[in-house]
Amino acid sequence: MSNPIGVALLGCGTVGSEVLRLLTEQSTELAARVGAAVRLVGVAVRRPWRHPEVPAELLTTDAAELVGRDGVDVVIEVIGGIEPARPLLLAALRAGRGVVTANKALLAECGPELYAAADAAGADLYFEAAVAGAIPLLRPLRESLAGDRITRVTGIVNGTTNFILSAMDSSGAGYAETLEEAGRLGYAEADPTADVEGYDAASKAAILASLAFHTRVTSADVHREGIAEVSAADILAARKLGRTVKLLAICERVLDSAGTEWVSARVYPAMIPRSHPLATVGGAYNAVFVEADAAGALMFYGQGAGGAPTASAVLGDLVAVARNRVAGGYGPRESAYADLPVRPMGDTPTSYHISLEVLDRPGVLARVAQVFADHEVSIMAVRQTGRTPEHALSGNAGSGNAESGGVGSDNAGSGGAGATLVIVTHSAPDAALRSTVDKLAGLDVVRDVVSVMRVEGEVT
Amino acid sequence: MSNPIGVALLGCGTVGSEVLRLLTEQSTELAARVGAAVRLVGVAVRRPWRHPEVPAELLTTDAAELVGRDGVDVVIEVIGGIEPARPLLLAALRAGRGVVTANKALLAECGPELYAAADAAGADLYFEAAVAGAIPLLRPLRESLAGDRITRVTGIVNGTTNFILSAMDSSGAGYAETLEEAGRLGYAEADPTADVEGYDAASKAAILASLAFHTRVTSADVHREGIAEVSAADILAARKLGRTVKLLAICERVLDSAGTEWVSARVYPAMIPRSHPLATVGGAYNAVFVEADAAGALMFYGQGAGGAPTASAVLGDLVAVARNRVAGGYGPRESAYADLPVRPMGDTPTSYHISLEVLDRPGVLARVAQVFADHEVSIMAVRQTGRTPEHALSGNAGSGNAESGGVGSDNAGSGGAGATLVIVTHSAPDAALRSTVDKLAGLDVVRDVVSVMRVEGEVT
Repeated sequence: MSNPIGVALLGCGTVGSEVLRLLTEQSTELAARVGAAVRLVGVAVRRPWRHPEVPAELLTTDAAELVGRDGVDVVIEVIGGIEPARPLLLAALRAGRGVVTANKALLAECGPELYAAADAAGADLYFEAAVAGAIPLLRPLRESLAGDRITRVTGIVNGTTNFILSAMDSSGAGYAETLEEAGRLGYAEADPTADVEGYDAASKAAILASLAFHTRVTSADVHREGIAEVSAADILAARKLGRTVKLLAICERVLDSAGTEWVSARVYPAMIPRSHPLATVGGAYNAVFVEADAAGALMFYGQGAGGAPTASAVLGDLVAVARNRVAGGYGPRESAYADLPVRPMGDTPTSYHISLEVLDRPGVLARVAQVFADHEVSIMAVRQTGRTPEHALSGNAGSGNAESGGVGSDNAGSGGAGATLVIVTHSAPDAALRSTVDKLAGLDVVRDVVSVMRVEGEVT
Repeated sequence: MSNPIGVALLGCGTVGSEVLRLLTEQSTELAARVGAAVRLVGVAVRRPWRHPEVPAELLTTDAAELVGRDGVDVVIEVIGGIEPARPLLLAALRAGRGVVTANKALLAECGPELYAAADAAGADLYFEAAVAGAIPLLRPLRESLAGDRITRVTGIVNGTTNFILSAMDSSGAGYAETLEEAGRLGYAEADPTADVEGYDAASKAAILASLAFHTRVTSADVHREGIAEVSAADILAARKLGRTVKLLAICERVLDSAGTEWVSARVYPAMIPRSHPLATVGGAYNAVFVEADAAGALMFYGQGAGGAPTASAVLGDLVAVARNRVAGGYGPRESAYADLPVRPMGDTPTSYHISLEVLDRPGVLARVAQVFADHEVSIMAVRQTGRTPEHALSGNAGSGNAESGGVGSDNAGSGGAGATLVIVTHSAPDAALRSTVDKLAGLDVVRDVVSVMRVEGEVT
């Protein structure tokens, strides 16, 4: 057995207290796995009186002093947020301590700075817990797939929004009332902004894209849309197409027409086929679907949040860092050699689903189709629904092919029954699709844009 | 950049040729990830004339010479089988070379010997490709979850049998004709014994149990049953219970009544609920469901076989081993500190589903239930089906509760319509369940034991 490994714990909330519990309960096993005893040197908290579970002699309010204290080999940070976590971890790394953190926001914003400090000092920086909680994901991405070429990562990485969207899909209820229910059940925080507006998922997308594509991607590079605009009509439209709505973090390689390789990182709600492995991920669970050249499709599934699951990931990292110190080596460094440019969202190819309520009169489809053509957007499928029987396509009743006829009645425009056009596009630059939608909304034959949502998860 | 890392490739079949391709195509990326160039020193094959794709100066038929050659840092073994892989890898490890292997049979049979050689020489031994092909699974088990306590691993780890069982479930066809179809489609080998008899899955179970429970488990310790006995009647019975049949590799901690902890490793076809995440894993895909104290439930899903997916896992290991050499450290060693005893199958708690065709006369259920009681097996649920209306329970027609009445007719025993009893037991020692079934088969009131299968995947 080597000398004991000294651990400083910064923060003792939901995750920290579980880390503390596992460190204590598993101490014999940890020692066996590390090859040295793991000894807790101190626990930094803001309000020591709130932590009767921590031995008094370990508690301190001076996190900076604890980080610098003799005998600290590894610093575990579970405070969250940028300040004061950032200077504390920089100080720890510069002093050559190994760092284990669950802080996705910090990594997504200041990752390069932390990596540089780790590199300069030859110190380890591990953060498995920062993305998808207990799911072993970052280690597979940066180690198991290190000899492969990852092309795409599609993740459900936020439990709150997945709970809300799953519930809306089951109940048909609207967003506001479902959010309220999620709050009552403890699945949404009092201020749910970071979750429902997609900030949390965007931080994770930045971390995933950095690892998958060996490129520095920060949260500022991630296009972000939340779920607050998702309506019961969207969910219903998805259901009619055999799809379901999920908030996705998507990281992919994009080739432009000149053959240049870019990285796209984006977060938005999208319709995916119900047959897709991600479609069955319900409630507060997380899952990440990874596509690689040689490995093909892989999926990782588990609990994305919660004290114990997150602590499990923290402890896994602690064992790795401690073992590296005992063995005299170090873990994989930041790998940003590919240094791909980040594709702006407007230039990124996506596909849209658009449901329109239109006037029921001749030439409507032609007018609508012309708008797509003007924006060089190709239509994959059109379906016309919701017409009353007497307005069925003249001469083509029952053919079910909206392209094949004009429109059967002239009087629908004057307040009579309208028709619904459901359009799914082929892949096109997102900006062209957005402009198409804007233009459609202004057409006199379009009564209402009922639902607009990107579609993902299959070749279009 | 450090000195180049020299690689010797043993074997150049389906997996080897893909490894060769990736080594060549990804050489720039590999160098960036390793921090040194990765240089192929030689490729050992039996019939060099069959490998025009390999530069002639790299080919050799003398694998032992190649392993010992100067400049070889890492040996990749994709020959398969015990001999000559075993002495070659022992020689490589004793000479201090890192070893990457996809050889599950060798690891499951001779793992401890290989581990000891690696340990003595301070050399790395990696084998991610040996279980579940491209799915990053071993690294998460031995690293990501190193700070947690794994309680159970349940895997679909053989693509051939999963293809066959999925097809039987979809079509209702029998085993023999489905196996033939699988052979035609390339999903089953000409001699499918290793797959359908569960030998392949048992090797993987041994490797998984060793890693999950820090205990030496070899293939001889694994209880093994294949799928050749699975009938269309079993599949149908499962369907009626809202279940599906999968060949499972199960590794779990078992506590006996004295509080001693054991390891159970076993492979058999079992009925799992259709709502279980493993139930949706179709075709030749693999998936492994892991339960741990803190992390909760995790699932890993992907392609379990095939040249490119397996080569992806081999390359990931190669990068790790090469990086360790550049960094001067080494990866996690064998961890067998827990050294738990292996529970014999007869003492392992399982639950059974049993469908019986019985005579339709009074007292039958009482006789059947007494057999269970005699073996101290507790019944969780009984359902009686398939009776013709005139034989409905007298005085309880339509109640649907088989416990609540006798039997309505005395004449069914003489060749008339019988009844079917479907019984699901609570958990009991497997030997007691087996004896119960044997005894039931001999009862004069039992016409036929239609289906017997273990049930897994939920608390009973």
